[in-house]
Amino acid sequence: MEGLEEMGLEKVLKERLATIQPLKKEFFTQAQERLDQLTKPRGSLGQLEEIAKRYVAIVENVRPLIRRKIIYTFAGDHGVTAEGVSAYPKDVTPQMVYNLIRKGAAINALAGHVKADVFVVDIGVDHSFEPMEGLVIRKVARGTGNIARGPAMSREQALRAISVGWEMADHAHSGKADLVGTGDMGIGNTTPSSAILAAMTGLPVNQVTHRGTGIDEVSLVRKVQTIEKALETNSPDPHDPLDVLAKVGGLEIAGIAGLIIGCAGHRIPVVVDGFISTAGAMIAAALSPRVGEYLFASHKSVEVGHQFMWEYIGQKPILNLSMRLGEGTGAALAMSIIEASTKVLNEMATFSEAGVSEEKK
Amino acid sequence: MEGLEEMGLEKVLKERLATIQPLKKEFFTQAQERLDQLTKPRGSLGQLEEIAKRYVAIVENVRPLIRRKIIYTFAGDHGVTAEGVSAYPKDVTPQMVYNLIRKGAAINALAGHVKADVFVVDIGVDHSFEPMEGLVIRKVARGTGNIARGPAMSREQALRAISVGWEMADHAHSGKADLVGTGDMGIGNTTPSSAILAAMTGLPVNQVTHRGTGIDEVSLVRKVQTIEKALETNSPDPHDPLDVLAKVGGLEIAGIAGLIIGCAGHRIPVVVDGFISTAGAMIAAALSPRVGEYLFASHKSVEVGHQFMWEYIGQKPILNLSMRLGEGTGAALAMSIIEASTKVLNEMATFSEAGVSEEKK
Repeated sequence: MEGLEEMGLEKVLKERLATIQPLKKEFFTQAQERLDQLTKPRGSLGQLEEIAKRYVAIVENVRPLIRRKIIYTFAGDHGVTAEGVSAYPKDVTPQMVYNLIRKGAAINALAGHVKADVFVVDIGVDHSFEPMEGLVIRKVARGTGNIARGPAMSREQALRAISVGWEMADHAHSGKADLVGTGDMGIGNTTPSSAILAAMTGLPVNQVTHRGTGIDEVSLVRKVQTIEKALETNSPDPHDPLDVLAKVGGLEIAGIAGLIIGCAGHRIPVVVDGFISTAGAMIAAALSPRVGEYLFASHKSVEVGHQFMWEYIGQKPILNLSMRLGEGTGAALAMSIIEASTKVLNEMATFSEAGVSEEKK
Repeated sequence: MEGLEEMGLEKVLKERLATIQPLKKEFFTQAQERLDQLTKPRGSLGQLEEIAKRYVAIVENVRPLIRRKIIYTFAGDHGVTAEGVSAYPKDVTPQMVYNLIRKGAAINALAGHVKADVFVVDIGVDHSFEPMEGLVIRKVARGTGNIARGPAMSREQALRAISVGWEMADHAHSGKADLVGTGDMGIGNTTPSSAILAAMTGLPVNQVTHRGTGIDEVSLVRKVQTIEKALETNSPDPHDPLDVLAKVGGLEIAGIAGLIIGCAGHRIPVVVDGFISTAGAMIAAALSPRVGEYLFASHKSVEVGHQFMWEYIGQKPILNLSMRLGEGTGAALAMSIIEASTKVLNEMATFSEAGVSEEKK
């Protein structure tokens, strides 16, 4: 039965990946032409113009309106917390899920600020939640295995967690979302994120491992050793992203990868949050090199490995505010910048409309 | 008569500067305590937490609400355009003022996005405007003199332009603004801005001069030579900020300096826009070293000299989006980030409210 489901999901994943189309040059050109007619020196809005052009190319509309924004925060637990890799006890994952649902978390304040809806997806928390508004219960397992001693999950579980992500993409699509953000909640989840980065790029573990929620020097050494042990124990195959994800990943990371793949298929631009979300984006980008174009890099985290992830994906972070919180907080802030770029396209007057003289030749 | 007015305005300036108080440590402490009780790892919101603390210390309220935001865009012309230092003809200054009033400019789109009001202040445009809603006519002169051949303005005109700025600060204060942004419009105004920076810091002109709205290599060489000639011709005294402002400055730059001084006196936080606005902020900071604490550095512009200005003032830019447009566009975008930081203070639950476990000791 398990083997059959795995084969079925792997087939659907291939179909999903096949729906992702390369962006068309003509939309970049149309957006550039529009931007150059607007009453400002050419290119003077810098990265805002680059964002606007790519947004246009993704949604294939040169005058796009961003009405609905949704952030999906995937929550999961991690067996590797038994190794003492986090500054917080594991119970904090479900406690924070309740906090998010009651709108007391940072993501609630920041998503509220940018008028984005937040859905929390229980994809792998080691706690049984009662049904609550804003909580989507799609538990694949009650946390991952301890990657220092064995795989995080089976390949079939990884595929099921990815499928939860694309189910959320379908939800965003049917809810007419114009912009989707990723988010995570899971005590211990910088550890699998660093492990994925090291496994996929071959970078030394100590160059891609940092303090997470705020561990001390001694714990950081332990965390590096734990990740090294996880890679040694599991030998993830860098040429098989699903293998890396299953062996040293996390359920929320898999969900995020699936969300990104699904949104790219639906032509919904995705703002990727911090270190954990970007680990999910790396898996998605490894599965389909076309995915990267559909992503916006919300910010550069304090985590030392984050920049390597953006380089791998080929996107430049919009913000650099020394944040390291996750939940989707960076994605929320970046949404405001992305929306601003579309307002430039829609609301500014052209040189001819405004009767303003153009550049001297 | 002129001499008398100058003496009077210089006296009022001194009084204005004397009203600026140093920020109190106790408010930083209170804000830090609040931030550390909130359900997030300590310090994990990075620069957002630094912004929140300083906002609290400026307004002396640990739970501040940002309701009203106003951007003042000061417009003025520059005699130095006769030297061919800009890519645009001088007529564009009044044309763009009309465009701003009709809400067709970039600042209108971006201020609208962050729900900030925009007032355009004609402080020195070489054009007679009819009264229009949103336009404040306070013309000190019809543009400055050509600084390559003589002073930009008299010391008395500089003082009058500064006083227009603090009049706008009074307007913001009586209009209950919680956050004020600066902006500029004036063809040729990167030239006096670079001249001010070179004069105040002693940095070589070619290290602080850039392409403005987009001049070519030949024009850039001419611009550097023009600024060198302006400094040689006028010999501004680096120890006398008013002398620098009058000799090589601009009317809109003076207005921005006055706005900043006035807002600091009223304890209204000011978001400083790009290169031209920051030249005004440098003048204000040179007049009172206490001013810097009241400012937020909206962004790092493409103009090569901008970073030196922020270092002089002692503030770190919030955004770095390769923008070079002015008008207040950077200030508008940064307002959204500053407002987000206050929402964190107000809307997040504490560990005890949420029943979330704190960090392991």
